[in-house]
Amino acid sequence: MTILLYDLVGSDMTRPFSPHCWKVAMALAHKGLEYRTVPTRFLDVATVEGGISKTVPVIRDGDHVVADSFAIALYLEHAYPDRPSLFAGAGGEAHARFVERWSQLTIHPYIGAAALTALHAMQDEANAAYFRGSREQRFGKTLEEVTAGRDAGLASFRASLEPLRSMLAYQPFVGGDGPLFADYIVFGALQWARIAMPYRLLDDADPVAAWFGHCLALHGGLAARVAAAA
Amino acid sequence: MTILLYDLVGSDMTRPFSPHCWKVAMALAHKGLEYRTVPTRFLDVATVEGGISKTVPVIRDGDHVVADSFAIALYLEHAYPDRPSLFAGAGGEAHARFVERWSQLTIHPYIGAAALTALHAMQDEANAAYFRGSREQRFGKTLEEVTAGRDAGLASFRASLEPLRSMLAYQPFVGGDGPLFADYIVFGALQWARIAMPYRLLDDADPVAAWFGHCLALHGGLAARVAAAA
Repeated sequence: MTILLYDLVGSDMTRPFSPHCWKVAMALAHKGLEYRTVPTRFLDVATVEGGISKTVPVIRDGDHVVADSFAIALYLEHAYPDRPSLFAGAGGEAHARFVERWSQLTIHPYIGAAALTALHAMQDEANAAYFRGSREQRFGKTLEEVTAGRDAGLASFRASLEPLRSMLAYQPFVGGDGPLFADYIVFGALQWARIAMPYRLLDDADPVAAWFGHCLALHGGLAARVAAAA
Repeated sequence: MTILLYDLVGSDMTRPFSPHCWKVAMALAHKGLEYRTVPTRFLDVATVEGGISKTVPVIRDGDHVVADSFAIALYLEHAYPDRPSLFAGAGGEAHARFVERWSQLTIHPYIGAAALTALHAMQDEANAAYFRGSREQRFGKTLEEVTAGRDAGLASFRASLEPLRSMLAYQPFVGGDGPLFADYIVFGALQWARIAMPYRLLDDADPVAAWFGHCLALHGGLAARVAAAA
């Protein structure tokens, strides 16, 4: 049965942008599972599957409804054990949680701020108003004030990627010789930036940029099909 | 056959302090392998097993001589597959490299600087002179100048542990329900600090401190047997 992925979009339904939804799209493709996305705007999330979650991604797989990207990856891993593994064992599952926490606490705060006005501009009127209200309350600043720190924070952001960059001298993917869910965790964050804003987040010569390019090419170029913001 | 672990010590042979040697001691204990340490001072490293490595740890296991803590852990994992796993699968091996790079680039620089004068004080005269010369060349400052930044950097160091701290809200060890080599990677760094200097690196209420305490208790309290610096 085709899996449904409730996937966050703005006014353009063909440009899903959520980092967490991209993790799941890549995980579904990695497993070779047939799926269909249900384009979902911020204000639609409350109605997804009867309001099961405050956020997307949410998937429906037959009778199973699962929210949260990491929980979804674990669900897929165990529901489809004969498909290519997302974790390559129990150690991979456990360590991927560390990668997830690192990505969330290191990469997301910078990109979330740097792309804030661009993400706002992607929404239709009602969703833009919701986004501005909720984010300005969270940050205690206007969206424009938050994004204004983008250039000043760039060098420090690039430096914060050093553990990943250094790891790439040992192996081509976080997953080793090939990608695993931990790669998609970090990929999702950079894909969020790529789709939201035309901003040179990474230096072209950065090994992280090369790794990101390899991820864009995976699964028939699934993630490259959505063009970078221009 | 008993494995030999060349283990870095200062003037007191009962206080091995190297973070990388502690990773290996914990890995050997985790595997339940019999081993004997060969106390090794900085100036002895060049003579270890015919000068096979510029650093310790080095192990000899019968005819196999292996240098580098990560390489040793991989060697032990594959040479003793029937013993408790250090990685719990190929995903764990790959992701542990990310944890290792994170620990090396996030935790080691601060502790290496904060403990620098204390590590110097642990050496005998000849090794102290070597240590001062090599480290002052590396840092371009006196040992005392490097360590002087300890208090100023403490809050930022504690903040840098946030990915680990946050992960501990999901699971008790980097390895999941129980420790794996990735735990010993981070443990080794904090044990280095614990043995070198009486300095409150972590707040008592920090979940990282609780996790560190659990690691100290592992394997019959192997790592707790060396008292904290006083």
